Amino acid sequence: MIRFALHGGAGVIERSRLSADREADYRHTMEEITQQAKQRLLDGESAAAVVEQAVISLEESPLFNAGYGSVLNADGVVEMDAAIMDGEGRRCGAVAAIARVAHPVSVARALMDEGVHVLLAGRGAQRFAVEQGFALLREEQLIIPERQQQLLAARAENRVSLDHDQDVAPFDPDDITGTVGAVARDLNGGLAAATSTGGMTNKHPGRVGDSPLIGAGTWADNQSVCVSATGHGEYFIRGQVAYDIHAQMTYANASLAAAAASVLSRVGAMGGSGGLIAIDREGQLALPFNSAGMYRAWFGADQVVRVAIYGDE
Amino acid sequence: MIRFALHGGAGVIERSRLSADREADYRHTMEEITQQAKQRLLDGESAAAVVEQAVISLEESPLFNAGYGSVLNADGVVEMDAAIMDGEGRRCGAVAAIARVAHPVSVARALMDEGVHVLLAGRGAQRFAVEQGFALLREEQLIIPERQQQLLAARAENRVSLDHDQDVAPFDPDDITGTVGAVARDLNGGLAAATSTGGMTNKHPGRVGDSPLIGAGTWADNQSVCVSATGHGEYFIRGQVAYDIHAQMTYANASLAAAAASVLSRVGAMGGSGGLIAIDREGQLALPFNSAGMYRAWFGADQVVRVAIYGDE
Repeated sequence: MIRFALHGGAGVIERSRLSADREADYRHTMEEITQQAKQRLLDGESAAAVVEQAVISLEESPLFNAGYGSVLNADGVVEMDAAIMDGEGRRCGAVAAIARVAHPVSVARALMDEGVHVLLAGRGAQRFAVEQGFALLREEQLIIPERQQQLLAARAENRVSLDHDQDVAPFDPDDITGTVGAVARDLNGGLAAATSTGGMTNKHPGRVGDSPLIGAGTWADNQSVCVSATGHGEYFIRGQVAYDIHAQMTYANASLAAAAASVLSRVGAMGGSGGLIAIDREGQLALPFNSAGMYRAWFGADQVVRVAIYGDE
Repeated sequence: MIRFALHGGAGVIERSRLSADREADYRHTMEEITQQAKQRLLDGESAAAVVEQAVISLEESPLFNAGYGSVLNADGVVEMDAAIMDGEGRRCGAVAAIARVAHPVSVARALMDEGVHVLLAGRGAQRFAVEQGFALLREEQLIIPERQQQLLAARAENRVSLDHDQDVAPFDPDDITGTVGAVARDLNGGLAAATSTGGMTNKHPGRVGDSPLIGAGTWADNQSVCVSATGHGEYFIRGQVAYDIHAQMTYANASLAAAAASVLSRVGAMGGSGGLIAIDREGQLALPFNSAGMYRAWFGADQVVRVAIYGDE
């Protein structure tokens, strides 16, 4: 009873803003990664191994705001957040505001496997990566030109908004919700989730979003559900989105669909937009979002891989 | 209907290990801070202002593992975590792995008040503090000799355990659970929580515990409960201790006492020790712990300040 879902971020994703070529790129990449995940699950790999590998592939793609192609912070530097959680015994590892590594999700995985700490941030996280044998990149090796343009635009808007004393947040609304993530259920019923992101364009150095925070953007427990969220992180932290779904299912006997809809609606009421992907212990899937679109791919009981971007597919 | 509670950490705190003079110091300091908090609440100050001020006082005292007198990480440096949450609208701010500031809780408060990000880590958090006008200390200004001794002891034990290939965690069991925190209910029914810590002796640089993580070590929502936890952070993160109490009360109609006991028992079953302080919207208090002792002080409906350290007072 294998299941899998991935997301590549939610936000103001509308047909009018995405060229046909670029849309095809997104669909092809997500389809391919999901097919690979399916094969791995059929081969008997664990949910944790499969979500890590799917997120590695998403980090490698310049289409998504994670790993290579991450957005730039206010210093013009890529600082990334990532987490992985294995629903078996709630094992987890996460890194925050880490620079110069190709695959933050794998550093998080190494921390989970070491089993001492759950979360490392900043330079200390980078040092752990080196200790574990990960290569340190030069900062520019993670940067694509498009992200530099977005930073310039965000900085310009910030100046404009300050000039006019408007209450405008200094972020590019198109990418504040960029994140990647994956959830899986393996042949043994194991659940796992992984999430990775470059965060928000023009963010303050050191800013940590919901992605690497266990219970906010990432959660897995074999007794209930695995969740990876994407959205305006500050609201997803205040909503404790991922753990809230677990809690509703555990304490109020809510269905996955009802729990996910309820928590997203509360986040929306606070002003937060985004979405999430989740699989419960029974193999039910949910992929809700309250933004215009969410890059996503998945397969359910029929094992047919599906890909979607907009609200209507 | 004002209420207040503070903690100064939980752990292996036994009468045989604490001199009478030192015990008197602890009791006097906690009593004084609680009396001051009571006066502020009677004067109409907000719960958020009162918990911040109480934690500032605890950070100033060398008795506790927070601010001045924090434990040292593996590099011999003080890196601190802190969070504050206002139950009105779930406003919150937090800093992780921040060095060279006297009062991490006040940097967290400044971030909450700015209202853009929820969590800043490492050098970026330090830079935010400077931008906000906080003074940068020299690293040694936060260090007391006792903590240097503890680090040497922890390092020595680590060597011993490696030499003999024993599965011993490289931490001083006496202080792994050192943290300070406060929770309050103000005249208007507002709830707030704040937590601050130096973390674990000999921790990996960049390690983040549960204290600055909203939902793990710190939580406040005027509709339910405010919580500040202290314990072996990695277990409190995996248990989502603070938010789980909110969730049990919200989704299962659990009493505060039952919810707090239940989550601590689950953390204990995973191998985690520690405790928490909490006040619910009705003014009920809970101060449970599963370790030998927890430094704590509080007042309830009778407004009599009480102080305790061990299980039996």
